[in-house]
Amino acid sequence: MKLEQNTKILIVGLGLIGGSYARGFSKRGYRVSAIDPDRSALEFALGEGFIEKGSVLPDPALLREADLVIFALYPHLIVPWVKENQAAFAPGTVLSDVTGVKACVVYDLQACLRADLEFIAAHPMAGREVSGVRNADDAIFENANFIVVPTDKNTFRAIQICRSVGETLGFARISSLPPRAHDEMIGFVSQLTHCIAICLMNCSTSEHLVDYTGDSFRDLTRIARINETMWSELFLLNKEALLQQMDSFMEEFAVLRELLANSDREGLKEKMRLSTARRALFDRPAEGGNQE
Amino acid sequence: MKLEQNTKILIVGLGLIGGSYARGFSKRGYRVSAIDPDRSALEFALGEGFIEKGSVLPDPALLREADLVIFALYPHLIVPWVKENQAAFAPGTVLSDVTGVKACVVYDLQACLRADLEFIAAHPMAGREVSGVRNADDAIFENANFIVVPTDKNTFRAIQICRSVGETLGFARISSLPPRAHDEMIGFVSQLTHCIAICLMNCSTSEHLVDYTGDSFRDLTRIARINETMWSELFLLNKEALLQQMDSFMEEFAVLRELLANSDREGLKEKMRLSTARRALFDRPAEGGNQE
Repeated sequence: MKLEQNTKILIVGLGLIGGSYARGFSKRGYRVSAIDPDRSALEFALGEGFIEKGSVLPDPALLREADLVIFALYPHLIVPWVKENQAAFAPGTVLSDVTGVKACVVYDLQACLRADLEFIAAHPMAGREVSGVRNADDAIFENANFIVVPTDKNTFRAIQICRSVGETLGFARISSLPPRAHDEMIGFVSQLTHCIAICLMNCSTSEHLVDYTGDSFRDLTRIARINETMWSELFLLNKEALLQQMDSFMEEFAVLRELLANSDREGLKEKMRLSTARRALFDRPAEGGNQE
Repeated sequence: MKLEQNTKILIVGLGLIGGSYARGFSKRGYRVSAIDPDRSALEFALGEGFIEKGSVLPDPALLREADLVIFALYPHLIVPWVKENQAAFAPGTVLSDVTGVKACVVYDLQACLRADLEFIAAHPMAGREVSGVRNADDAIFENANFIVVPTDKNTFRAIQICRSVGETLGFARISSLPPRAHDEMIGFVSQLTHCIAICLMNCSTSEHLVDYTGDSFRDLTRIARINETMWSELFLLNKEALLQQMDSFMEEFAVLRELLANSDREGLKEKMRLSTARRALFDRPAEGGNQE
């Protein structure tokens, strides 16, 4: 279900994701405004038609007219922002976010929220290796997952509005997970993979790799280009879950190393058969690329 | 430089790579024949026009008329094949291969070879997650590296012929490395990445991952679909170099884990800045994809 066409949307934080939301919504005829301390980001978004109004400060007039507010801020900034500014929202305003970790934000935020407002968390699993509103592009949502992250406090209405954000912006799959299960999953699927890419990129000092890298190495290191401020924060906010995933990966890696050290051909093949069968489960038909 | 147009090419082993060579050469007007014990593979290649002659046995007449022979066999099969059949080759015939590891094959082969033949090793760094001649496709060479792997015994002429194989088939980059340096590099760039993909795919048992995987996880596990017979052989043939690369990766991974365990935000950021700077060195302009 699409978001109601007359919904007035306010984006707080006009970076890559906030900008891509603004672009995606305005393209589909929604009225979008934005708050960001960076005047040039607002001017860019106004010039491109992503937003119709912008303010460098949390202008109470902008806040009051919003039906739906999306926080696209660094996680640690959201709760303080809401505490300071929530008085200006109209009753019934729905708040949501785009944060990559949830348990550390959602409960605190719901606990401090005015009783006539509702916060429903969401995680658009999309991004780019570059940042900022100038790189905003809602095409990044096309093949991506959108996860609604409700708690026991959320109403059916807000959950549906949150789903419709994902549907309106054209996400490929929309699913739902409670905060802790979300963080556990993301520790594995996203954060562990970034840890691996970083280490793979850092563990050899050869400057001449570029002459020999094939698609495998490219694929495994693409996400080694990383916004260190955001990702160090995400890692630390999900520390326990991520440590557990790193340990389980290291354990598996040590087993494979021992099979090789012992020249255990059958053991190696068994591991490869398992990984092949599992990976086949989520192959996309068009998926190609080289294996060298 | 392209291979001379009248070169008669014999492919020994019509699997994915042998078949893709045959397809690439015949498409460009070269005369290609093939030997493979699987009659249906030969019939398929004849039907598609990849080859003009084929034999299930090492037919001496086919061997004698070849100017250039490419072995696209499992590594351990090449030396015995050559020992048994080299008597039939015409003097001056150039032999090459497509094997992913080199030191374990090249020296033995050059040592047992007739004095009037020459073996020059090559590694086309291309492949697919599927195997067999029915999946042959020379488009896999377009963005790929082709490595000529000469030893002190090789002549300038054979090295040039080998380069021209890569150039004729349309590889993007052609370079050269001696056998041991090649194996060290491949242990890092290709084999270590496959180890990582296998372990990442195997270390979680959740069956519901598919609902949440984004491009990062897909990228890092694409090569977890693997031909276990070939790759266990490649790993074992390059055991020492690969163990060293696995250890250096594990060490780097353990360092990152400790930074996280100690909540060392600056240390994490430092690692991310390093991986970002290194990865940027070999970004392709068109490289995209999501980072979630």
